Amino acid sequence: MTLTVVGSIAFDAVETPSGSRDRLLGGSAVHFALASSQLADTRIVGPVGDDFGAEEYAILHARGVITDDVEHVPGGKTFFWAGRYHRDINQRDTLQTDLNVFEDFEPKLSPDSSGADVLFLGNIQPELQRDVREQCDRARFVAMDSMNLWIDIAHEALLQTISLVDCLVLNDSELKQLTDEPNLIRAAHKALDLGPRVVIAKQGEYGSAMITADGFFGLSAYPTSDIVEPTGAGDTFAGGLMGYLAAHADEIDDAALRRAMAYGTACASFNVEGFGSERLYELDRAEIDARVAMLEASSRF
Amino acid sequence: MTLTVVGSIAFDAVETPSGSRDRLLGGSAVHFALASSQLADTRIVGPVGDDFGAEEYAILHARGVITDDVEHVPGGKTFFWAGRYHRDINQRDTLQTDLNVFEDFEPKLSPDSSGADVLFLGNIQPELQRDVREQCDRARFVAMDSMNLWIDIAHEALLQTISLVDCLVLNDSELKQLTDEPNLIRAAHKALDLGPRVVIAKQGEYGSAMITADGFFGLSAYPTSDIVEPTGAGDTFAGGLMGYLAAHADEIDDAALRRAMAYGTACASFNVEGFGSERLYELDRAEIDARVAMLEASSRF
Repeated sequence: MTLTVVGSIAFDAVETPSGSRDRLLGGSAVHFALASSQLADTRIVGPVGDDFGAEEYAILHARGVITDDVEHVPGGKTFFWAGRYHRDINQRDTLQTDLNVFEDFEPKLSPDSSGADVLFLGNIQPELQRDVREQCDRARFVAMDSMNLWIDIAHEALLQTISLVDCLVLNDSELKQLTDEPNLIRAAHKALDLGPRVVIAKQGEYGSAMITADGFFGLSAYPTSDIVEPTGAGDTFAGGLMGYLAAHADEIDDAALRRAMAYGTACASFNVEGFGSERLYELDRAEIDARVAMLEASSRF
Repeated sequence: MTLTVVGSIAFDAVETPSGSRDRLLGGSAVHFALASSQLADTRIVGPVGDDFGAEEYAILHARGVITDDVEHVPGGKTFFWAGRYHRDINQRDTLQTDLNVFEDFEPKLSPDSSGADVLFLGNIQPELQRDVREQCDRARFVAMDSMNLWIDIAHEALLQTISLVDCLVLNDSELKQLTDEPNLIRAAHKALDLGPRVVIAKQGEYGSAMITADGFFGLSAYPTSDIVEPTGAGDTFAGGLMGYLAAHADEIDDAALRRAMAYGTACASFNVEGFGSERLYELDRAEIDARVAMLEASSRF
């Protein structure tokens, strides 16, 4: 089964208490694809500038990510984000965000990308997400992310896009903000009323929760003691989640969604153990499976 | 098997977005005992004033709580706490704390109380906790709570008390503060180095986690959408936890501790569904068992 992700492709600069980097391969679609490609063939859709070259493509190709729909904008610069993490690595400040080639991005998917069985709409402008969703009319399962910015400045467009997907994946604070409801369970049910049949709340260091009309599943985060730099952890979670679902697209039921969350959790735990996505470059599937097994053992009673 | 809890017995006044109460039966030992008594015979140790009377004793006795070691201080007033909850019920401000009879409390346990198999040291001054712990020299399993106040003003005494218990139960933020370590797993291992063989982090709306030298267990909170007033949720969690352990004191192993956390989680979920502990007054064991079963189903994959 095939998986397409649309989202940002970026260079990130980060400062952390244990060191800093001024040019990391990043962006929601990149973090996502480096995880999902462990589990399913993944096509990545997004724009890059002249500064995105052979080295970056080589990283994606080494993991088997299909980059035919990466759009090179001649004369443009790749999306850039800079941030500083606190001693409590769960806290960060954004220092700089340069949209660059993203400012005029109009996704046009090739037939191979738009024909995917499973689609993930990474965190970009809701109108663009809707445009991509409408191009992928054969997808059996569509999930999306978003962020506080779009909840604030493109609320109606965001609600419309949410109505077109099967699954909404959001930080729990954003889910509460979206629905103006401080209780997670009520917030999730308000989000279900917008259209999706599945809502997944990302809870950072605490883990994640899945809420459906008649069900609940909660999973703690992998107990990582060596967090180097957590940028993209949520995107990596979505990558592991959707990669697993793409590999099991014949029957995306409650059991598959639960196991998919464990794959997302395991992938995210590797992502935070290095700068950028570096820890994912050389990862093999057996390492992911081992953490999924550990999560299974550490959540049973 | 018998269980003794020492802690505060209080009157609470609370304001919430959905209403307010000016005199609720509260205090750490009360919330604890109203939960633990569902699972094991519970003796409660703590001081009260002249304002604590037949009505309050009747509530405890209706649940079978043994009050022989409740110390009446003639002319004194019972501990009083007042707080205001925000629209996000996870946020609160303390409005007033009157120690009253707690100021001169010196716990003296009867032979029946000091002979308990299982002991819980609720959140009181660490020197008093140590004093009680030393009186209960036959206890097979001893756990304790604490709070940011004692971490700040009685740090050394707190470390000494921690060295004398089997299990430390703390809010995750307090665990991080105690050990000056922002990563939960590292913080828990630093706490294990102080002496206990089990550290349990209470994570509020997210759930709880247990860390031992070579193990990890994470459990989401029960998915409650009707939170009325959460005062004492952590104490109720500890009550369910320790009640279960007292009923299984012959073998307090990893499996028993995990199931005990589920009982604590279930009890806490009832506590937050009403003002004070009111929801626990008429609760029966079958309702608790049903939520434990639901937690089991909602954490498996």
